[in-house]
Amino acid sequence: MSKLYKKLAALSRKAALYESVESLLHWDQETYMPSAANPQRAEQSELIASMVHKEKTSKSFTKCLGQLIDLDSGHVLDSSLSAPQAGALRMWRREYLQLARLPSAFVKKSASTASHAIHAWAQAKKENKFALFAPHLDKVVTLARKKAELLGYKNHPYDALLDLYEPGMTTVSLEKLFTTLKMGLLELFRSVRAQPSLDESFLSSTFPVEKQVQFCKLLMEKLGLPNNKTRLDFSNHPFCTGNHPCDIRITIRAAEDSFSLAPFATLHEAGHALYQLGLPEEHFGTPMGSPCSLGIHESQSRWWEAFIGQSYPFWEHCYPLLQELFPKELTDITLEGFYRGINVVKPHFIRIESDEVTYSLHIILRFELEKALIEGSLKTKEVPEAWNHKMRELLGVTPPTDTLGCLQDIHWSMGGMGYFPTYTLGNLYAAQLFDCFTRQFPDWNEAVTAGRLAFITEWLHEKIHRHGNTLIPTDLIRKATGEELSERHFLTYLRKKYSLLYALPYSG
Amino acid sequence: MSKLYKKLAALSRKAALYESVESLLHWDQETYMPSAANPQRAEQSELIASMVHKEKTSKSFTKCLGQLIDLDSGHVLDSSLSAPQAGALRMWRREYLQLARLPSAFVKKSASTASHAIHAWAQAKKENKFALFAPHLDKVVTLARKKAELLGYKNHPYDALLDLYEPGMTTVSLEKLFTTLKMGLLELFRSVRAQPSLDESFLSSTFPVEKQVQFCKLLMEKLGLPNNKTRLDFSNHPFCTGNHPCDIRITIRAAEDSFSLAPFATLHEAGHALYQLGLPEEHFGTPMGSPCSLGIHESQSRWWEAFIGQSYPFWEHCYPLLQELFPKELTDITLEGFYRGINVVKPHFIRIESDEVTYSLHIILRFELEKALIEGSLKTKEVPEAWNHKMRELLGVTPPTDTLGCLQDIHWSMGGMGYFPTYTLGNLYAAQLFDCFTRQFPDWNEAVTAGRLAFITEWLHEKIHRHGNTLIPTDLIRKATGEELSERHFLTYLRKKYSLLYALPYSG
Repeated sequence: MSKLYKKLAALSRKAALYESVESLLHWDQETYMPSAANPQRAEQSELIASMVHKEKTSKSFTKCLGQLIDLDSGHVLDSSLSAPQAGALRMWRREYLQLARLPSAFVKKSASTASHAIHAWAQAKKENKFALFAPHLDKVVTLARKKAELLGYKNHPYDALLDLYEPGMTTVSLEKLFTTLKMGLLELFRSVRAQPSLDESFLSSTFPVEKQVQFCKLLMEKLGLPNNKTRLDFSNHPFCTGNHPCDIRITIRAAEDSFSLAPFATLHEAGHALYQLGLPEEHFGTPMGSPCSLGIHESQSRWWEAFIGQSYPFWEHCYPLLQELFPKELTDITLEGFYRGINVVKPHFIRIESDEVTYSLHIILRFELEKALIEGSLKTKEVPEAWNHKMRELLGVTPPTDTLGCLQDIHWSMGGMGYFPTYTLGNLYAAQLFDCFTRQFPDWNEAVTAGRLAFITEWLHEKIHRHGNTLIPTDLIRKATGEELSERHFLTYLRKKYSLLYALPYSG
Repeated sequence: MSKLYKKLAALSRKAALYESVESLLHWDQETYMPSAANPQRAEQSELIASMVHKEKTSKSFTKCLGQLIDLDSGHVLDSSLSAPQAGALRMWRREYLQLARLPSAFVKKSASTASHAIHAWAQAKKENKFALFAPHLDKVVTLARKKAELLGYKNHPYDALLDLYEPGMTTVSLEKLFTTLKMGLLELFRSVRAQPSLDESFLSSTFPVEKQVQFCKLLMEKLGLPNNKTRLDFSNHPFCTGNHPCDIRITIRAAEDSFSLAPFATLHEAGHALYQLGLPEEHFGTPMGSPCSLGIHESQSRWWEAFIGQSYPFWEHCYPLLQELFPKELTDITLEGFYRGINVVKPHFIRIESDEVTYSLHIILRFELEKALIEGSLKTKEVPEAWNHKMRELLGVTPPTDTLGCLQDIHWSMGGMGYFPTYTLGNLYAAQLFDCFTRQFPDWNEAVTAGRLAFITEWLHEKIHRHGNTLIPTDLIRKATGEELSERHFLTYLRKKYSLLYALPYSG
């Protein structure tokens, strides 16, 4: 039977090779490709994507998989397999059923709808005309509902969509987490807003981009990203592409007058990169060598960007190096002032510019709206009004335009309903891991102050990376922390950190 | 029947899409890929290459092709097709038969032999130990002979190899051209060597790489390479990759202490790029939208690198711009001095460092050796001695090491027997085209002095680019110039140019 598993792994690896080519095509498109090559690149990507699909649903793959796991019940047929191997089979089956349940005509229609919707969205955003996007959003929602029907679900159609990005997560679990989270965040946000604001103006002085990049590369080095396996490039939107544990590429955006962009994007993407680097190379192309979910991936990026990267000890170590690079620009800024500046809490119209406290409120807003869209209780034409209403309710501000409101994100136009919640789940996972970590290493901050970070990556590797995609996220988190997933740790972390920063009364 | 042609074109286009992905993988490997990703990249490339082969020999492709052209006789079956379409069918058939005649086991063995041979060659070159490479060269030669048998030939096994790179070219034609060429070059070289040498020392002063790149980009602009379709990057060996007429990428090498590297590599690769850009986009992926041969491609690169790029009027226009960029470095160098410096003739051990006069002697040496290897009249272990013997005979110098001798080029290790002659054929084609061009535009040099280059590209487009790969090279050259291919024009061009440079007596 182990022979069969090997055969399945080899078939899966072939699909993954195509996927790795696809991700290179994407990386190239976003970084170096001449602009006129766009239509040609679309054709190349479509061709390679079709081969991924073909390999993942081929007769030999299906047959081999069906011999190892009962495709109907999910019962693993080979009792000699290890627990991770059995877990891998469950993940293979999960993905296979998702692919098999979506007819290729439906997939093609979705792709072409998305392609048109993205185009319309970009135009609508540029011109601040929601009406240009509305008919496309209508189609996207209809297709998302249809997709949910095709995939199947027990309680709520949104479950089927959510499950695509965060296996095992359900609408009801999410609502439970988000309800308490929302209340806690709103309370903290109100307390913070009642305090005098902190100074962050120095982050907008002039920081030459070349030196920023130098600093970003230093951060990559500090975090232990090996030179021979990683790269740093520019793109419009930061991302991390993991072709293979030996080829991980980070992209960032940098602006001379905004210091926070590049270094924090680097830390964020470096977190994704460390996860990819930590996946067992010998299992490349199989669930045992793959990342678990979008949410778990996000937990790794948020860990390094926020929990470590916006922490005091991290800058205790790094700030002198930063000052060396920018002696003029940071001459009057103390470490304490810098730390306060990078942790300012204030309402933003734009999700990706938001701080740790308000970020998840943006996500909750999106979750509530897309759930309502899928249920049919919200009509697409009502989205701008509903969006602005919720912005007032959650953040106390009204976006002056839809460009700064419901048109800001690309996700819906791509057909990615169910994607947004993974951002906040990532924060919850990270906070729960961080709680566990700090209990295990009460002196972690002294190590970080001394620039010792490797033990953190080792800990994450032990808890998360090495497991690949053999457990669903809630199981992985339970295994790693010994507790059920809860919003509690994130709220506690935020209350503690921001009570200190904003001189709030804090009780444990 | 036109429907069938369209179907064939669509099938061919799919293979070309895979090929374009393959060439991106190669470009990335040579420019930006993290070094540890090499093994993964080999797997990706192999997978995509196998898909190219699969598409080009698929049942549907074979059937469709066979309905349009008799695969045995080469007789075009559809008389309604245009001449270029009929030409395209002949090229499709030619390639199809080559692929079909090589069993996949043979192709695999060749690839794995090459892979090992390249590795051994690199090591042998590094350590100056030919013995490390010799057994691999043995295998390469054996496989090349086998390949010739599989492909078939009329007169000489080398014909079959040559035909892979330069369709229609034969050993006997090549020998005829090269015999006269060799005599002419040797005579000119001897005359030049008898004269006082020209000064080129200023080319080795310090030219900051950043400014060199700035100048190279200016050259690309001058030659009319559009920004939205082309790029310039660095790699160890300069090349031009044409994924599609909308995505053409040039790479160069630059060294601070050697000005000649970067700008002339840029001009060379820009010539290749202009050819790719000039191919009819609507016929992408079919012979009508493909380049003709390696030799014709080389004629386009040599045209811009040497015939225009090392000409006096070109630098009459460009030198002031260069001096603006490097005022200190070039302060004492007049235009005439610069022109002489970039056209110095002297014996080099290394082919790619050679001048216009001696370059083809390097090629003739390789041609004579590889022909003898294929015939069996030269044993692989005798290669170093034979090489050095011919170097003395042709260039009057003896390489002090095999690294500077028979180990300098990668081609043989790759299994590329039959490739080298295309470099010199490129020069012959270019010279014959140049003769035709200068007769049609006797005032071409005044236009070039004024920086007007677009009409040259238009002329090359009319004569070469627009035809794609619908004629074999000798037919294309005859059609373009009204004459049979001859070495005469190249020799005349060289005699005229270098008589002036070296103050030799010259009689028309």
